[in-house]
Amino acid sequence: MLAAWRERADAALARALPDPQSPPQRLHAAMRHAVLLGGKRMRPLLVHAAGHLFGVEASALDAPATAVELIHAYSLVHDDLPAMDDDALRRGQPTVHIAFDEATAILAGDALQSLAFEVLAATPVSDRIRVELLRTLAVASGAAGMCGGQALDLAATGNGRGLSVGDLERLHALKTGALIRAAVRMGALCGNASDEELQRLDRYADALGLAFQVRDDILDIEGDSATLGKTAGKDQAQDKATFPALIGLDASRARLEQLRAAMFDALAPFGERADALAALGRMAIERDR
Amino acid sequence: MLAAWRERADAALARALPDPQSPPQRLHAAMRHAVLLGGKRMRPLLVHAAGHLFGVEASALDAPATAVELIHAYSLVHDDLPAMDDDALRRGQPTVHIAFDEATAILAGDALQSLAFEVLAATPVSDRIRVELLRTLAVASGAAGMCGGQALDLAATGNGRGLSVGDLERLHALKTGALIRAAVRMGALCGNASDEELQRLDRYADALGLAFQVRDDILDIEGDSATLGKTAGKDQAQDKATFPALIGLDASRARLEQLRAAMFDALAPFGERADALAALGRMAIERDR
Repeated sequence: MLAAWRERADAALARALPDPQSPPQRLHAAMRHAVLLGGKRMRPLLVHAAGHLFGVEASALDAPATAVELIHAYSLVHDDLPAMDDDALRRGQPTVHIAFDEATAILAGDALQSLAFEVLAATPVSDRIRVELLRTLAVASGAAGMCGGQALDLAATGNGRGLSVGDLERLHALKTGALIRAAVRMGALCGNASDEELQRLDRYADALGLAFQVRDDILDIEGDSATLGKTAGKDQAQDKATFPALIGLDASRARLEQLRAAMFDALAPFGERADALAALGRMAIERDR
Repeated sequence: MLAAWRERADAALARALPDPQSPPQRLHAAMRHAVLLGGKRMRPLLVHAAGHLFGVEASALDAPATAVELIHAYSLVHDDLPAMDDDALRRGQPTVHIAFDEATAILAGDALQSLAFEVLAATPVSDRIRVELLRTLAVASGAAGMCGGQALDLAATGNGRGLSVGDLERLHALKTGALIRAAVRMGALCGNASDEELQRLDRYADALGLAFQVRDDILDIEGDSATLGKTAGKDQAQDKATFPALIGLDASRARLEQLRAAMFDALAPFGERADALAALGRMAIERDR
């Protein structure tokens, strides 16, 4: 199911992105480069898996799955800019400002964010749920979500040892957690989930989001650039706040296991219908890139 | 009425922006700097004037008025970045990347865009119209609108004389026109305007958007930096495509008068109810900053 959803997500993204042959071609090409050259598609998969839990047709989930990945992709384009993380390699490919130029990368990111909301506004659900989807994604993307977490990360960079573990967890709850929570929520909203179900899924998503990040920090130390498709060892070089830097590798691995338990605990009442969400949780914890 | 709407727009923007005392403070402060230090508020005024045409209460228009100005403000923050227009002065104040830093300016722009859609999702109208507002603003902001126009402008910079007047008008129809059209449309949508009324208002908005830009180009030559609040003579220095550069100052002034006539022609059937829209049209043409 995951492989089929991933193909579906790739196809929906390719359809949503503007034609590289029509003007402005360079902008369109940069947008496509940012989105279509790989990626795990974790967030679209979470939308599909959460919608599946409530019996939503996959075709009704294409729009939110596309929208959340467009937001994720734009954030990577801007994170990679020289003024931010200054990264030349992403998913084994040159980053957008390297393959194109800085101005085009800024604009492509901006246009990808707009496109996310345009796509989401066309989700084939009731207008009431559409508005709720749009609000959910906007809040998760902004100053109280992803952008806010990125700002906390900027403030912490070069001063990594000044953070507590609690600070670091709050940072990641915004920087990556908010969008992962939105992905799960959007899938569930399309299935008319109850407030209690949404809250249970929030607990799953929050644990998964943090687990994803702890694993990322461990991989930056243990992984190699070829497998990762990005520069390994970069966190240490930049004195970034990471879980291994703050609590050590063993404690980071133990935290991952706690988060695994929290995920499965949150999913338990859903039974087998939540198998896909459980599989995504395991992937976040066990992945090697 | 315009002065009261402008005050109203400023107050609504201040309320919508995040608290500068709560973390991440630097991001919040940069967002407020980008939005609250002046600006003509042309787009919020257009929302109010278009809504007024259909008898919409001003309080119902605060959300779209705020949203369109947040999009405009974010675009200026990103336009001013070193990789784009590299401008240090805006509205007589240091630009965001000068007052803060480049990374914060990129993030503040990104978060302002998200905030625009968050605010718009709370407009006190039916869900059907809310979705239409969100779709309208997203399309106007993205690759088929403002960002696309900015990309065309980047391609033309340094090659200004290579464009035809038609190319230049198409560039501005996207770069500034799309958002001005969206402002007028959003106000009218809140008043349940008919398709015919919307099309008539599009003609008004398209003429106004272009007039605004022709006037801008003329002011870059005739104005002084102190009155403008930004660096005069910059277009010529960058060999930007402008109307005076392509057709001369006299023909540019004649084009302005044509656009004035087109605006008034489009508004005529609305009678006195369109006085505020007419006044905004005159302001665009006669302004000296």
